[in-house]
Amino acid sequence: MSRGGPTVAVLGGGQLGRMLAIAGHRLGVRVRCLDPEPDACAGRVTECLTGAFSDEAALSRLLEGADAATYEFENVPVEAAAWCAGRVPMHPTVEALSAAQDRVEEKALLGSHGLAAGPHRLIETEAALAEAVRSEAEGGLGVPAFLKTCRGGYDGKGQVRIETPDQAAGAWAALASGRARARLVLEALVPFEREVSLLAVRAGSGPDAGGVRFYEPVCNEHEGGILVRSTPAGPARDGGALDRARSAIRSLMDAMGYVGVLAVEMFELPDGRLLASEMAPRVHNSGHWTIDAAACDQFENHLRAVLGWPLGSTETLCRWEMRNCIGEIPDPADLLARPGLRLHAYGKSAKPGRKVGHVTVVGG
Amino acid sequence: MSRGGPTVAVLGGGQLGRMLAIAGHRLGVRVRCLDPEPDACAGRVTECLTGAFSDEAALSRLLEGADAATYEFENVPVEAAAWCAGRVPMHPTVEALSAAQDRVEEKALLGSHGLAAGPHRLIETEAALAEAVRSEAEGGLGVPAFLKTCRGGYDGKGQVRIETPDQAAGAWAALASGRARARLVLEALVPFEREVSLLAVRAGSGPDAGGVRFYEPVCNEHEGGILVRSTPAGPARDGGALDRARSAIRSLMDAMGYVGVLAVEMFELPDGRLLASEMAPRVHNSGHWTIDAAACDQFENHLRAVLGWPLGSTETLCRWEMRNCIGEIPDPADLLARPGLRLHAYGKSAKPGRKVGHVTVVGG
Repeated sequence: MSRGGPTVAVLGGGQLGRMLAIAGHRLGVRVRCLDPEPDACAGRVTECLTGAFSDEAALSRLLEGADAATYEFENVPVEAAAWCAGRVPMHPTVEALSAAQDRVEEKALLGSHGLAAGPHRLIETEAALAEAVRSEAEGGLGVPAFLKTCRGGYDGKGQVRIETPDQAAGAWAALASGRARARLVLEALVPFEREVSLLAVRAGSGPDAGGVRFYEPVCNEHEGGILVRSTPAGPARDGGALDRARSAIRSLMDAMGYVGVLAVEMFELPDGRLLASEMAPRVHNSGHWTIDAAACDQFENHLRAVLGWPLGSTETLCRWEMRNCIGEIPDPADLLARPGLRLHAYGKSAKPGRKVGHVTVVGG
Repeated sequence: MSRGGPTVAVLGGGQLGRMLAIAGHRLGVRVRCLDPEPDACAGRVTECLTGAFSDEAALSRLLEGADAATYEFENVPVEAAAWCAGRVPMHPTVEALSAAQDRVEEKALLGSHGLAAGPHRLIETEAALAEAVRSEAEGGLGVPAFLKTCRGGYDGKGQVRIETPDQAAGAWAALASGRARARLVLEALVPFEREVSLLAVRAGSGPDAGGVRFYEPVCNEHEGGILVRSTPAGPARDGGALDRARSAIRSLMDAMGYVGVLAVEMFELPDGRLLASEMAPRVHNSGHWTIDAAACDQFENHLRAVLGWPLGSTETLCRWEMRNCIGEIPDPADLLARPGLRLHAYGKSAKPGRKVGHVTVVGG
C-alpha cells in the first residue's frame, strides 16, 4: 500500500461523510468529500471541497487520484453520480441512487423483489389527490394518509398528514408550491406496531464478491419525522417475514450489482407482516450503533466494499441503544459520566431539529 | 458545547497524535498538532502545524483557541512544554516529561515511589564506564550490560550492548560521539522472563478528579528494541508484585498531580519480582489494543482526562492480540480477510524499521 493508502471520493460532506472519513483514517484510507456547504461537518475531519454537485471542475478535483467514489446523501443529483461513475468505480450503483430519490420508484423496486409497500398512489394533480383521499369504497385510499413529495424530502420534511378529505387542497398547496402538476405520493396510514430497519452490505470484487451480510434488525423511533432512538429489534413477530425481507434485499442487491451498505426501513404490522417504507443506498442513521457494538461497523464495511476489500463481520458484540442528539449536544462532562456511554459529536453548530450527534450506550 | 467542541493542542504529530486526533473527531474534540516534520502523519487526519518546538510563533499558533495542551512524544523539549504550560492547562505535567527524558532520573523517580529498577549506574566519563563494566566483586555491575544514552533514545536507538569489558571503549565512542563527558547509563542485563507494561490514566478536574484507572497488564515482545507484539499478560507470577507496582504508579501520579495516561514498562523476573524499565508520560504503543478491545481506549481517556471530563471504563471486553506493522503494511485485501482483524494504518511511507501501522486481532 502506498503512503496514504487508497482514496475514496464522497459526494456529500455531512455527518455520514464525516463518519466514513473517521473509519478511513484508521484504515489508512483517505476520504475526500464534496459538499455545497462551506461548513459541511466532514470538513473538520478530512479534506472537504466546497462546490456544487453540478460543477464539473469541483467533481474533477473530487476524483483526483481517487480509487473509488461513493455518496453519503441520496439527494445528490444522479447526473453528478453518473459523471463520477464514468471516471472511477462508483458504488453503490447510480441506478440505486436514482430509484431511492423517488418514493414511488423505490417502492416499485422493493416490491418487484418481494418486499411490498403499504397502499399508496402516485399523485400528479390536485384532482388526482381529491380522488385518492376518498374512501376505499369510493375507489380511494381513504384518510388519514400522508401526502409526500416523491423527491427531496428527508427527516420529516416534504410531507403533510391529511386527516379529512377537505384537508387535501391545503396539503396540495403546501407541497405543489403553486404548480399545476407535481410528483407526489399519497400513502395510506399503515397501522404499524413499530418501525424496523435492515442494514445489508454487499461485497464488491475479491474473494467474497457478491456476498451479502446483514446487521441485526433494528427498531427505530421517530419524533416529527426525525429518528430519535434505535434499539435491537429482537425477535420479529413473524421470523419468516424477516427472512423474506432479507431475501428480497439480497435479490435486489444481486440484480443491481449493488456494492456497499443499503438500508431498508419497514413497518411491522400487528400480524407480523413487514411493509417496505423507504430505502437508503448508503450508510444509515439506524446503523450508527455498529461503531460501538458490532465487530465491524457500517462505515468500515462500506469502505471495504467500495474498495473491493473483504467484508468484516456484522456480528453484534454487546447490548446497545442509540439515541440521536437533536438540536444540541448535552455537556460532555455530564454525558460521559454515564458508564458505557459512547459520544459521537458531529462538530455542527446547535440548531433546533438538527442532528448534531448521537450517543450509543453499550453493555449494562 | 460550541460548534467544534473544545480544542486540544498536541506537541508532536506522529502516530500517537494521529490516534488522539481520531479519538477526538468522534468526540467532537478538535486536536491540533505541531511537528517539525512537514509530512508528520497526524497531518493526514487533522490540522498539523509544521514548526520547530523552539519556535514561539509556531507554539502560539498551536495554542490559538486551545482549551488544553498535551504531548505525544517524550523527547519534546521541556522548554516548549513549559512555555505552553504557562498559557493553557498542560497535561501531563512538565515535571513528568522532564523526568521521562532521562533514564537515570526516571528510574530514580519510579524507585522513590517503590518501583525499583534493576542495577544501573550513571556514566559520565569513559573512565567511569571502565570501572562499571568490571565484575561485581571488583565493584562494577559486570557484563553483559547495556550502555544507553540517558536522553533521546527510542525504539532501540541510542544503546549498545556490551558483552565483554574490552567492548566498553567502543560503546563509549559510539554513544559519546567524541565528547569527553556524556550522560549515559550502564544497565546490568536483567535475566527477565518477560516484559510487562502497566497503563494508567488519572482524571483531572471533575467528579473523579485524581481517580486512577488501570488497563489490564500487557506482555510486550521486542525485536531489535522495537515493540512487535503485545498480548494480555494474564496472571502475574506474583500478583502481589503487580499490586505493589500499581500502588507505586498511583503514588507517583498523586505526588505529581499527574493527569492523563502514563505507561510504565517493567521486567518480570523468574522469581516474580517486577523491576522498572522505563516510563512514558503519554499514550503508549502497548495500549493500542485498547482501541479495539477496551470499553474506552487510551486515546479517548487521555483526552477526557486532559479536558477534565470523567474517565471511561478501562475494562477489557474481549480477547485480543496486537502486532505492529514494521517497515510496511501488508496488502489490506489479504489482511482484512482474517476474521476479527482490525487494521490501523498510519499513512506513513514504507521504510525498514519504521512503525507504519498495527493490527489488533480480537475474539477467537
